[in-house]
Amino acid sequence: MTPPASPDSQVIATYRFPPGIDAARQAEIIAIGQTLGSADARFDGREQALAACRGEVLEVRATGDGALALVTFPTANTERDIGTLLTMVFGKYSLAGPARLVDLRLPADFGTRPRFGIAGLRARLGVIDRPLLMAIFKPALGLTAADHATLLRSVADTELDLIKDDEILGNLARAPTLERFRACRPVIEAIRDRRGRDFLYAVNVTGRADTLLASARALIAEGANALLLNVLVYGYPMLEALAADPAIGVPIIAHPALAGALALAPDHGIDYGLVLGRLMRRAGADIVLHPARFGSLPFLAADEARVIAALTDRDGAWPAVFPGPSAGIKPAIVPALLADYGPDLVINAGSAIFDAAGGPKAAVESFRAAMETGA
Amino acid sequence: MTPPASPDSQVIATYRFPPGIDAARQAEIIAIGQTLGSADARFDGREQALAACRGEVLEVRATGDGALALVTFPTANTERDIGTLLTMVFGKYSLAGPARLVDLRLPADFGTRPRFGIAGLRARLGVIDRPLLMAIFKPALGLTAADHATLLRSVADTELDLIKDDEILGNLARAPTLERFRACRPVIEAIRDRRGRDFLYAVNVTGRADTLLASARALIAEGANALLLNVLVYGYPMLEALAADPAIGVPIIAHPALAGALALAPDHGIDYGLVLGRLMRRAGADIVLHPARFGSLPFLAADEARVIAALTDRDGAWPAVFPGPSAGIKPAIVPALLADYGPDLVINAGSAIFDAAGGPKAAVESFRAAMETGA
Repeated sequence: MTPPASPDSQVIATYRFPPGIDAARQAEIIAIGQTLGSADARFDGREQALAACRGEVLEVRATGDGALALVTFPTANTERDIGTLLTMVFGKYSLAGPARLVDLRLPADFGTRPRFGIAGLRARLGVIDRPLLMAIFKPALGLTAADHATLLRSVADTELDLIKDDEILGNLARAPTLERFRACRPVIEAIRDRRGRDFLYAVNVTGRADTLLASARALIAEGANALLLNVLVYGYPMLEALAADPAIGVPIIAHPALAGALALAPDHGIDYGLVLGRLMRRAGADIVLHPARFGSLPFLAADEARVIAALTDRDGAWPAVFPGPSAGIKPAIVPALLADYGPDLVINAGSAIFDAAGGPKAAVESFRAAMETGA
Repeated sequence: MTPPASPDSQVIATYRFPPGIDAARQAEIIAIGQTLGSADARFDGREQALAACRGEVLEVRATGDGALALVTFPTANTERDIGTLLTMVFGKYSLAGPARLVDLRLPADFGTRPRFGIAGLRARLGVIDRPLLMAIFKPALGLTAADHATLLRSVADTELDLIKDDEILGNLARAPTLERFRACRPVIEAIRDRRGRDFLYAVNVTGRADTLLASARALIAEGANALLLNVLVYGYPMLEALAADPAIGVPIIAHPALAGALALAPDHGIDYGLVLGRLMRRAGADIVLHPARFGSLPFLAADEARVIAALTDRDGAWPAVFPGPSAGIKPAIVPALLADYGPDLVINAGSAIFDAAGGPKAAVESFRAAMETGA
């Protein structure tokens, strides 16, 4: 996971195979099958046109427990977006047997740039050198729009930076998306006026692809200042659409729902460093939420480090974006996160704020104190 | 996989756990964590509102090699679409450890209805009682728009029913999507005029979510009569958008690219019977392409049977849709497919038609002859 940009004309994909797989043969199948279509095809008379499209095996290397293969693909086979990229490097081949896509090296301008990233969000929020603190409305379901405003008021007198919907809260009859935002908007404005810097509410956008886009634009037209997207459910191409739309133009927070279905199996699927790391960053997310090794989900320290590196490492001139350790985050684990990764984090807590014994305001202050200790 | 519709107010999800997992405890974590948000939350004073939203463990059962758990969720927690469904039943929980989503029972009207399905496509194409035959333009890349028209002319004098782009062919400089359709349109019209029944060309639609929708509408405005979508790359919510859009209104063919990243691992992810079966059907696909056990991809007979059953079984009044066995399909394996599944199939072949030693026309005729033998 230390990819400098690849040459502009090439995408380099790395696959990991378990023991017992003929990695050299599989790499050849990928190089041809994922470009021209058939590993044993002839297509007489088309040799020249085909040569410009085909992939090439760059390297096959045995490792302690299996093998790695690097395959190069012409960038011209893609639309320089994540949709055609994924179809090319792992589409049909994902069905072919045990193999895991573990790395992608992409040309410098491949994808959709995050509109804010770490630098832009810090400027927007007026927070220079400490982690950001984000709350999650809880409980996840059962609240009305007015309940959201009440919960937000309970932390209005703190230095909380952002709040977001729970990812399972869609556009439901009890609390329609637009009504949630409308109920909270006066509280957001009061927070901003009181302290003279912005406060963001990432509203969860859902729906069929067409209604999701329409819902996002309607929220922005009413003044919404951030969006939350379940990227693996709605697709990286939806994240790219939101990030590229000049009529939207607000920070976008990527949620990892469904990521485990792609990344958790050991010998199949796509590595977390891509699913929640490089692909999210190249698709335009400004903050990417992910499990933390000390949280309530079982997440390996190595996975956590790889995701955070992929979001923040030097990747040409591509903006670094915020990692957001999430799920079971409590003040006590904040110092360890800061010690390992420094201040470029969004600390994201739900029940530890809105279900705290001492109340939400005291909980936010505990988080802020833990951030000072850890800094 | 024999789900009659669940009660209208409930979605029932089935999870499979490998040996060594406390399935009863995991089922409780799912029932609470995927609805209210925290398995150990209190949220004093909200008991009544929360009771209406929470999931319930219906059954936990040991099997020969692990356990199954059935959990019910209130339908009111969703937008009755696949996006909020997946987030609810497997979103955050997918990150929690080895568990596989293996079945979903859905209320009768949950999802987006296919506009055609088997009955509608048969009526549209004037083919009553035999399988449909679909070709794939090959090679997958390297062809110009004019090359597409030339390939289509080579099979114009046959009883081929449909043709489609390869799934890796996006909107590329060498053969832009709209130009491919424009070049083929006169050939499609000539085929239709000659034989007096429709011929469909499923054009692959790609792009960011907003440009994909715009591209689909532009194709339809020019007369395109079918679309191909890489559903797992662009998301079920994109399939639902295309299927629901009255301005589109053409048959939609779902491609399985990336499905293996979700479904191939044994103890993680989501079963093929859902990924390529029930979810595709409930999201509005008219034809779903999938590997065949006798093709070039390793696909278990049990997976093939489960996918085909989920596409065609009785599911309330929901339309049955066409299974499309694909990848390495040759005339020799057609009789076995028909013997197992009957005539409600779309036989889908690429290289076996456009890279055939005897030429494409003879290859189509071989497929048609094999379909007669198998009938």
